[in-house]
Amino acid sequence: MLKGKNEIVQNYLSSIPFDRRLYAQDIVGSIAHARMLAKQSIITNDDAKTIESGLLRIKEKIEEGRFKYNPEYEDIHMNIEAELYKEIGEIAGKLHTARSRNDQIALDLRLFLKEQISTVLRCLSTLQEILIRKAEVNISTIIPGYTHLQQAQPILIAHHILAYFDMFQRDKERFSSCYERVDVMPLGSGALAGVTYPIDRSAVAKDLGFSSVTSNSIDAVSDRDFIIEYHAAAAITMMHLSRFADELILWSTSEFGFITINSNFTSGSSIMPQKRNPDIAELIRGKTGRVYGNLMAILTCMKALPLSYNRDLQEDKEGLFDTVDTLEHSLTIFTDMIDTVQFNTEQIRTAFKNDYVLATDIADYLVQKGLPFREAHAVVSRLSNYAVKCKKNFNELSLKEYQDFSPFFDDDVYKLTIDKSISSRDVFGGTAPQQVKSAIERYWKLIKNENK
Amino acid sequence: MLKGKNEIVQNYLSSIPFDRRLYAQDIVGSIAHARMLAKQSIITNDDAKTIESGLLRIKEKIEEGRFKYNPEYEDIHMNIEAELYKEIGEIAGKLHTARSRNDQIALDLRLFLKEQISTVLRCLSTLQEILIRKAEVNISTIIPGYTHLQQAQPILIAHHILAYFDMFQRDKERFSSCYERVDVMPLGSGALAGVTYPIDRSAVAKDLGFSSVTSNSIDAVSDRDFIIEYHAAAAITMMHLSRFADELILWSTSEFGFITINSNFTSGSSIMPQKRNPDIAELIRGKTGRVYGNLMAILTCMKALPLSYNRDLQEDKEGLFDTVDTLEHSLTIFTDMIDTVQFNTEQIRTAFKNDYVLATDIADYLVQKGLPFREAHAVVSRLSNYAVKCKKNFNELSLKEYQDFSPFFDDDVYKLTIDKSISSRDVFGGTAPQQVKSAIERYWKLIKNENK
Amino acid sequence: MLKGKNEIVQNYLSSIPFDRRLYAQDIVGSIAHARMLAKQSIITNDDAKTIESGLLRIKEKIEEGRFKYNPEYEDIHMNIEAELYKEIGEIAGKLHTARSRNDQIALDLRLFLKEQISTVLRCLSTLQEILIRKAEVNISTIIPGYTHLQQAQPILIAHHILAYFDMFQRDKERFSSCYERVDVMPLGSGALAGVTYPIDRSAVAKDLGFSSVTSNSIDAVSDRDFIIEYHAAAAITMMHLSRFADELILWSTSEFGFITINSNFTSGSSIMPQKRNPDIAELIRGKTGRVYGNLMAILTCMKALPLSYNRDLQEDKEGLFDTVDTLEHSLTIFTDMIDTVQFNTEQIRTAFKNDYVLATDIADYLVQKGLPFREAHAVVSRLSNYAVKCKKNFNELSLKEYQDFSPFFDDDVYKLTIDKSISSRDVFGGTAPQQVKSAIERYWKLIKNENK
Amino acid sequence: MLKGKNEIVQNYLSSIPFDRRLYAQDIVGSIAHARMLAKQSIITNDDAKTIESGLLRIKEKIEEGRFKYNPEYEDIHMNIEAELYKEIGEIAGKLHTARSRNDQIALDLRLFLKEQISTVLRCLSTLQEILIRKAEVNISTIIPGYTHLQQAQPILIAHHILAYFDMFQRDKERFSSCYERVDVMPLGSGALAGVTYPIDRSAVAKDLGFSSVTSNSIDAVSDRDFIIEYHAAAAITMMHLSRFADELILWSTSEFGFITINSNFTSGSSIMPQKRNPDIAELIRGKTGRVYGNLMAILTCMKALPLSYNRDLQEDKEGLFDTVDTLEHSLTIFTDMIDTVQFNTEQIRTAFKNDYVLATDIADYLVQKGLPFREAHAVVSRLSNYAVKCKKNFNELSLKEYQDFSPFFDDDVYKLTIDKSISSRDVFGGTAPQQVKSAIERYWKLIKNENK
Repeated sequence: MLKGKNEIVQNYLSSIPFDRRLYAQDIVGSIAHARMLAKQSIITNDDAKTIESGLLRIKEKIEEGRFKYNPEYEDIHMNIEAELYKEIGEIAGKLHTARSRNDQIALDLRLFLKEQISTVLRCLSTLQEILIRKAEVNISTIIPGYTHLQQAQPILIAHHILAYFDMFQRDKERFSSCYERVDVMPLGSGALAGVTYPIDRSAVAKDLGFSSVTSNSIDAVSDRDFIIEYHAAAAITMMHLSRFADELILWSTSEFGFITINSNFTSGSSIMPQKRNPDIAELIRGKTGRVYGNLMAILTCMKALPLSYNRDLQEDKEGLFDTVDTLEHSLTIFTDMIDTVQFNTEQIRTAFKNDYVLATDIADYLVQKGLPFREAHAVVSRLSNYAVKCKKNFNELSLKEYQDFSPFFDDDVYKLTIDKSISSRDVFGGTAPQQVKSAIERYWKLIKNENK
Repeated sequence: MLKGKNEIVQNYLSSIPFDRRLYAQDIVGSIAHARMLAKQSIITNDDAKTIESGLLRIKEKIEEGRFKYNPEYEDIHMNIEAELYKEIGEIAGKLHTARSRNDQIALDLRLFLKEQISTVLRCLSTLQEILIRKAEVNISTIIPGYTHLQQAQPILIAHHILAYFDMFQRDKERFSSCYERVDVMPLGSGALAGVTYPIDRSAVAKDLGFSSVTSNSIDAVSDRDFIIEYHAAAAITMMHLSRFADELILWSTSEFGFITINSNFTSGSSIMPQKRNPDIAELIRGKTGRVYGNLMAILTCMKALPLSYNRDLQEDKEGLFDTVDTLEHSLTIFTDMIDTVQFNTEQIRTAFKNDYVLATDIADYLVQKGLPFREAHAVVSRLSNYAVKCKKNFNELSLKEYQDFSPFFDDDVYKLTIDKSISSRDVFGGTAPQQVKSAIERYWKLIKNENK
Repeated sequence: MLKGKNEIVQNYLSSIPFDRRLYAQDIVGSIAHARMLAKQSIITNDDAKTIESGLLRIKEKIEEGRFKYNPEYEDIHMNIEAELYKEIGEIAGKLHTARSRNDQIALDLRLFLKEQISTVLRCLSTLQEILIRKAEVNISTIIPGYTHLQQAQPILIAHHILAYFDMFQRDKERFSSCYERVDVMPLGSGALAGVTYPIDRSAVAKDLGFSSVTSNSIDAVSDRDFIIEYHAAAAITMMHLSRFADELILWSTSEFGFITINSNFTSGSSIMPQKRNPDIAELIRGKTGRVYGNLMAILTCMKALPLSYNRDLQEDKEGLFDTVDTLEHSLTIFTDMIDTVQFNTEQIRTAFKNDYVLATDIADYLVQKGLPFREAHAVVSRLSNYAVKCKKNFNELSLKEYQDFSPFFDDDVYKLTIDKSISSRDVFGGTAPQQVKSAIERYWKLIKNENK
Repeated sequence: MLKGKNEIVQNYLSSIPFDRRLYAQDIVGSIAHARMLAKQSIITNDDAKTIESGLLRIKEKIEEGRFKYNPEYEDIHMNIEAELYKEIGEIAGKLHTARSRNDQIALDLRLFLKEQISTVLRCLSTLQEILIRKAEVNISTIIPGYTHLQQAQPILIAHHILAYFDMFQRDKERFSSCYERVDVMPLGSGALAGVTYPIDRSAVAKDLGFSSVTSNSIDAVSDRDFIIEYHAAAAITMMHLSRFADELILWSTSEFGFITINSNFTSGSSIMPQKRNPDIAELIRGKTGRVYGNLMAILTCMKALPLSYNRDLQEDKEGLFDTVDTLEHSLTIFTDMIDTVQFNTEQIRTAFKNDYVLATDIADYLVQKGLPFREAHAVVSRLSNYAVKCKKNFNELSLKEYQDFSPFFDDDVYKLTIDKSISSRDVFGGTAPQQVKSAIERYWKLIKNENK
């Protein structure tokens, strides 16, 4: 209760401006609690029903915008509690039997985060589906593959896109794993020591869809690991988005020119026709910072905090809400954006200014002819230098010129092409079209199995 | 190769001062690769055997301190490669067939981290065992339970200690989950596009004890998620240690006086006999910062990094090694320290300066007598204020005084004691002795099952 | 313009929900720009006046809550610009001559931050004044001084409080130094290259109270250093507050019992009379995380960002506003709280459970008698061990017992008392009352000079 | 002393592996302390001289690699102290009169950091000089200026380079400002309360080149602000380097092709002649993470730490040393690298694929002819769309076509060229050659004044 405190203190302490977001979780948790109290004969069935219907009316009020939040009640729990008194009178007081705000808020957060993780998982799967589709549609488009942002070896753009499929798959694994640790029911831990009533914690867990109950009451009210773990998973996902966003920004420069981002996701300057500012991609990249920051904030907050509940823990919410929203919106909008990206195949083709990206293929050719790898490597090194010096592409060298560097060269060296290079990387996980196609099949199967 | 570069550039680029730590992983990985090349007839069996025995001799040299690292070879891979030439001549060149440093370093890191996670899991289990033992030995010691660092309700110290058991259990879950994503074999991804040889990636994976192989070559050389995820799990574990360390520091002040930390883990001032500086606990708390910092460093490093390999990735190692060591040493030493901590039961008893910690029990007593919870709460609130005003403990109030506040009070109110308070919190996860004992049994079973 | 974009994209791009906070800066900046354009005959005086009065009417509207923000105009600049068209018609279009949103937003941020830094400086000075007052009032109260949270040497509580004076003084220096880098006028940099009109940048700077103008147009629109520097200074200030808050939490435990925090800043449990939860102090400590996080967020955002303006920069605002508010509120409320803190001198006295805190004084005594320091140290070490073994205080030892350890001991050893210990640390910066008093004088003078 | 502790504890506590780096500061500090003790007649002149010469012999030993660090002495102070006993016997014990390790380590750190800041300032100035030179040499080279990584307006490359001059200038200001807070002498603060001897703190400060002395003994041993502030300044500098490094990486892609980085700073693949991997630039960018991480580590470490000295503070050193080295090496090597960068003027010219970058100039042209800015803007917007549709450059449009959009167009519109565009941005801080030249003059003067 903030009554009697001055306004600046009230505002500083009050969490109602943000924790009202948890109203639905608070109410559903209270209903489950009341039902269990009745089932255990701690309160009567009638009282439980009165409480439940009162709470449902409050929920309706909130959802219809008719609820008046009272700043004197510092949080969502107390606001709802006070309203319940108004709705059903003294019976409201029975709801708080065998419960404390400490386990109540832990419950609300866990209910909330379970939903959010489900949402993120859905968003990630949708994004993955779009990536597979994008790969399918562009299955024959070849781009330079880069290391150090220098052209290294030709690859299928589909293969590049599917690299992100794998990243988002790991993200889903991390969130799913995190979910297991969120999915534990804390009610019954009381303020910190457990409660003195013959409650049935498993019943509450079952009613609310939790897989298990917390096993130490002190830990249950002190623990925010599940929030940190969520933040860490979110940070990695945003990092993935930031890498992809950075590539889109790069590819849509006039210098690269590989892609055109749909104008719904760019801002043109109205007078500079050459500009298609990739604002959405930039913002996603920029928002990575915010998600990292929220992770750092909660880690700092929890450092060296003695057990059990401390008011510092109130700081767990705003950063969480911010990351939850940033992540969901960034994923959704990135999905829509990537869906519309056009690959400018003609411009991409001009990116290969020479055929030096075939150098490793030529070395592999020599190995197949019988040279040890490092020796083959040395031959191609000398050959490359020669080609550069003559300003010739590999395929402009005469066979004689080739053979000056190694007698192993033969006519078939001219069969080495960018297409050939790609199709020869025919190893599980490689860029050969047949491998990429089978990856696509595998990924569809994976996604479909998950959706079952 | 750093040859020809000036010294400052050499030093800046060189990773040999730290990545030499990966020599064993590099060698075991190369041996598996060579065996597979032979099995696939890419090189001969004889060559594979020559390579293997050469590598084993190099391993021996390194372990016996006879290996000369050459600063011109910038990393551990090139140092070993160069030495292999010295050992076995030109055949050495064949080892690098169908492999690139990009997939090789990914392999080495994964092998290394798999071992490290196993070590951390062992350390955590050992710590948990000590905690159970500590709980068993101190099963009847009661301390004040705190919220906001204010005495709230009495608890068993065993219950408090076991709160940390649960935290470390979650840590183990996180590390185990992370392990699954480390346990994927990247070799065969080449520089970024896959390789052109008919290699058998699964054979290498099996030989090296990996559960699966990476499924996209570009992702495989770009990915450091597994390192970040490890850092995040480590940060949470250090956070747990920092909380425990902070409590030990607090409890060993002369003001609290709950515990005595063994002098092996404190530094006395030789002339100030009153001082038992909890240096180890302080350092563990302080090192939390370093582990957070390493997490932030790698997250920053990966932000917005285009695919595939970029030299920035070299920065993945030093922070990892630092966190790996900090975590292992902190866990080990914390385990040894907590093992020796003595609870000063006499001093602890004096901590309860009054019996106001029974207030919630009195309210629960009234509820059991028939008052709704919030009303009972209001009665005890008035009663408490009265008691404080009279400077009396609850158990010093007369029955008449009690009944002035509510007719529900009866003689049996005097049966409410600290012991009774504890034993009445008899709910799963609560502090009642029977609950704590059954938790201990459950935890022993858990640990034993894991060790199977 | 967000027109034509779908809603989710609009919301993602839109900064109007938060940058509307900069309306006053935007308007004052525009007025100065218009005046200068007229002065330079780029627009007419009449036009400038029309623009100015239009803008002032918009300001009024905003401040009276009559302004309708249009979500299609993505930011505060465009909302005001559109409104200006409504107010004054086509002349509005002239305001944007020789200006771009890139230099405009840089200006707004700088104007905003200049005010905020002034506010922080004021808050810090007020806090310092309260600290001096607190020190004056408690000038003779002695508490144990701690190292490692172990009692080390007696100190004046006033001296301890004034340690924070010094910290906040450094904070002020940092903010003042940061101010110099904020106080630079960026307008005239255009989109990135400068403008093509004969503008007078110095006139604008003078009009707006800036000390100088930016000297490179590309840097001027790319630079957010001043925001990061502010965040870093804020992080250190919050760290200071977190240290002080932690001490208040500690000191208000029943175990320490040194202080009583006024109930306006604590939350009691209504039924647990023993509880005075230091919620405000805990929240301040917890909010440190948020301020660290915001620093990390902007650092991450700026990492490796190519010049000049990128949309990532939009992420500079929310974290800044959050830190600005957190810092101001935390400082204000901390000041109010510390002002009311009562030192429980009786309880503090009992904290010295023995006189072993005099150990270093005894060693110094022997040095004054002629022993080298380390030898004196060794003597006292043996003496201490003896005293502990006999369970005697130093002042309970007989002179004979003293002299058994060293012939240098004499009757005057009994003159060593806690008071004496304190007054003997009579060195600049030491805890001797005369030193603390002269520090207080010095600090008053400092504060008064600053206020001039 | 670590004697008697087991090895794992010894290693955990020991700081000698890293704090030995402070040997010179420790010795010079001790000498100043001894001299002052003699001056104040606390010890004799002879003793002071014996101590000084003993310390100097130890320094020599260390520098010649003849010093044996003893792991039982946990830090550099105790190692030197123990050695001093060996060198000069019991007199060594007198050195520690009126001093504690707490103020001693604060002194050593401050001495160290003062030197390091001077070094950084020198490195930054050298880098700035190279930048000015680079700007001078390339004074007439034009590149596209970017916003959102999209070509916006033409600029001089010199102007772009000098944007970094301004950034590094602010860095220098920040480091200089930080220096003032480092430059305060803490000795005389003792363990925490001051000392009991008639020392002369100012004399020590003067001897060691400090500007002032700390004014509160508790703060003096608790304070690590100066280290955090250094880290924050370093983080911003690294951020600047990361931006520049990212641009170099971008510009040296084959797609941009603006620059060639000297091969001393790139690593080629020996067989891929097209690759010039910008390894140094990538590493600098990557190391930004490490510097951010170290900042976060020390901030975390200091959060909520009660006064005065706590062992956590030992964690201040490794991160500091790491950032100090990273920063110095990164600056030095970046300077060498940028010095050798070649601008490929021919390739740069081809970057302007059309003359649409002149769009704002055309709008400004119309304004000069009398149109209000926003109207001019609208005309050019329509004109641009037309030009794009016809696939014509602006300068390929007929006057008739121009005039179809506005009667204000005249023959002189053809005078608008990229060169003209640049020279018309003739405002202080703009990209016009005359402005850039005068900036260069100004910057030379600035650098020269600083060097005075």
